[in-house]
Amino acid sequence: MSDTQQPTASSTLAVIPGDGIGPEVTAEALKVLEVASPVRFESTRYDLGAERYLATGEVLPDSVLAEIRGHDAILLGAVGGKPNDPNLPPGILERGLLLRLRFELDHYVNLRPSRLLPGSASPLAEPGDIDFVVVREGTEGPYTGNGGALRVGTPAEVATEVSVNTAYGVERVVRDAFARAAKRPRKKLTLVHKTNVLVNAGSLWWRLFEEVAAEFPDVTTDYMHIDAAMIFMATDPARFDVIVTDNLFGDIITDLAAAITGGIGLAASGNVNPDRTAPSMFEPVHGSAPDIAGQQKADPTAAILSGALLLDHLGHPEAAARIEAAVLADLSERAPGAGRRTSEVGDAIAARL
Amino acid sequence: MSDTQQPTASSTLAVIPGDGIGPEVTAEALKVLEVASPVRFESTRYDLGAERYLATGEVLPDSVLAEIRGHDAILLGAVGGKPNDPNLPPGILERGLLLRLRFELDHYVNLRPSRLLPGSASPLAEPGDIDFVVVREGTEGPYTGNGGALRVGTPAEVATEVSVNTAYGVERVVRDAFARAAKRPRKKLTLVHKTNVLVNAGSLWWRLFEEVAAEFPDVTTDYMHIDAAMIFMATDPARFDVIVTDNLFGDIITDLAAAITGGIGLAASGNVNPDRTAPSMFEPVHGSAPDIAGQQKADPTAAILSGALLLDHLGHPEAAARIEAAVLADLSERAPGAGRRTSEVGDAIAARL
Ligand SMILES: CC(C)[C@H](C(=O)O)[C@@H](O)C(=O)O
Ligand SMILES: CC(C)[C@H](C(=O)O)[C@@H](O)C(=O)O
Repeated sequence: MSDTQQPTASSTLAVIPGDGIGPEVTAEALKVLEVASPVRFESTRYDLGAERYLATGEVLPDSVLAEIRGHDAILLGAVGGKPNDPNLPPGILERGLLLRLRFELDHYVNLRPSRLLPGSASPLAEPGDIDFVVVREGTEGPYTGNGGALRVGTPAEVATEVSVNTAYGVERVVRDAFARAAKRPRKKLTLVHKTNVLVNAGSLWWRLFEEVAAEFPDVTTDYMHIDAAMIFMATDPARFDVIVTDNLFGDIITDLAAAITGGIGLAASGNVNPDRTAPSMFEPVHGSAPDIAGQQKADPTAAILSGALLLDHLGHPEAAARIEAAVLADLSERAPGAGRRTSEVGDAIAARL
Repeated sequence: MSDTQQPTASSTLAVIPGDGIGPEVTAEALKVLEVASPVRFESTRYDLGAERYLATGEVLPDSVLAEIRGHDAILLGAVGGKPNDPNLPPGILERGLLLRLRFELDHYVNLRPSRLLPGSASPLAEPGDIDFVVVREGTEGPYTGNGGALRVGTPAEVATEVSVNTAYGVERVVRDAFARAAKRPRKKLTLVHKTNVLVNAGSLWWRLFEEVAAEFPDVTTDYMHIDAAMIFMATDPARFDVIVTDNLFGDIITDLAAAITGGIGLAASGNVNPDRTAPSMFEPVHGSAPDIAGQQKADPTAAILSGALLLDHLGHPEAAARIEAAVLADLSERAPGAGRRTSEVGDAIAARL
């Protein structure tokens, strides 16, 4: 740092707009961040995703990963090409880019808040009743890329996927979830797993959940099988406060949670490294939606709310709250079916700040 | 068979009432079956489940399995003890009894129809709009009991679960699902998986889905990731016709399907061995609900509808249709919140036959 440094602090942001609607929603998130943030952001844009892969064969070069690692935080749009593109082997971008970032940067807390926001017509509850957060484990489980295939393409093919769970990995995410629950008014934590079938992983999760619970006597605990959790999520989501769960169950439950609380267009997420040994990454839960890409049809609200999570993580909770308030106000006053363009939604939210 | 055989044919039924509300709902299913069936049933009752295990340590003795195997079909109530019973190791009954039956008797088609039934208040659709069936693979995937644990109980514990998928196992269930789709008016089959993360298993499912599709040119095909399927199931379930999916995804999606189409009290299932090398097994999707056991509070409708699937499988589609019609009529005329006793529901449905 030179001694001509500005009085205003600054933070560095690695921006990965990604594929499909990713660049459109990311632009709006940045627009809002710029207005809301008390610090200046020095953003560097990384063109990673389907386009780069198809042009160069590169997914995430080590040198790019090293550069990204040097930033204070990462803002990501969405990653994933057209489902049937014969030039995109299945999962190459997801595994090679999105999941590689989550794993390499040790994003073991995949944080996904769900609130019933105003303007969303849920038959299940009033806005305000539903307010929970899913703490999804982000670096283990069935997402490790373990497993393989034998005699591929023949009638004798065998393909395996190995869910890897460690006491180290489970304990840290469970402890993080307890700490979050302890700070909330209801102080309730629900473990979701499938202990009656996945008995090895299930026993490990169960044991550490019970062990860490002893450190948080104020937190009420509950357990639910993933299938039962589906039913409660669909019929009584207001019962949840904090949920802690495995990587795959978390993937599934958070999309359902989004669907019942205003839609996937509003669901934000943070891939958090609570130990701050590497930058955390913030992204909407939704995918790249190639079918509507480039048409200014995507709702950037989830990306904008992910920006709020980013600000909160960087130590600016008031600014994060201001974005959330602006989004709530915008949602309350949204004319139903108004069909604003992506940039119009971003403009409207930025104008409220 | 002696030559004094009755003119009416008879079928043998192995009845496993199981735990919790299992015996109560099974009694009603049998009551209705007796009235509806064109054949006489010779039922043998097998007391398997938590009570027997706690008393004797036995889960499913080989000799009992051999006896059960000799029947024409199996009717099962529900299996599973109290979640926190220290004398019941997690999964011992599920893995040792329910799943052992499914695996040993090669129930590779786990059939779970979902219809929006009259009287159920779905905000999403009108009764009749939602009518789909999930063909859940029943003998592979993460349910195989592969995997293990190392350094159990220590901070260095590692626990794995291995999802095993074979071309043999995937192809047969995919072909069954295509054949079912081809017989339905809409002729539509959706594969649900997570091919972008579980690339080994996903590629196998995808390949065989495409290969078998070529044999069924009349069937429209579709693919959805499990997380996206959550969203569509919650917001637009009427779009589904037949879904084919892996054992664990099928477990998850069918509970959600039940929740949005009248509730888990109405969801029936068949564990079908289409090759008829062993008896198929019919059971409600719901669990043993120990909290309301023995109180005549459980809704036996799912068990009764499972009985209809059983009759259909044994070659009595008209009798199955009569049970379904009686259930529909009962549901249409159910006073909301009437709170009939389990046996009263069974009586009411039987009386309509
Ligand atoms: C794109 C995919 C790999 C990803 C996941 O499965 O985690 C997405 O669904 C999500 O939830 O962030
Ligand atoms: C009880 C349990 C083992 C079972 C399963 O997971 O298959 C149940 O949830 C079901 O869906 O039949």
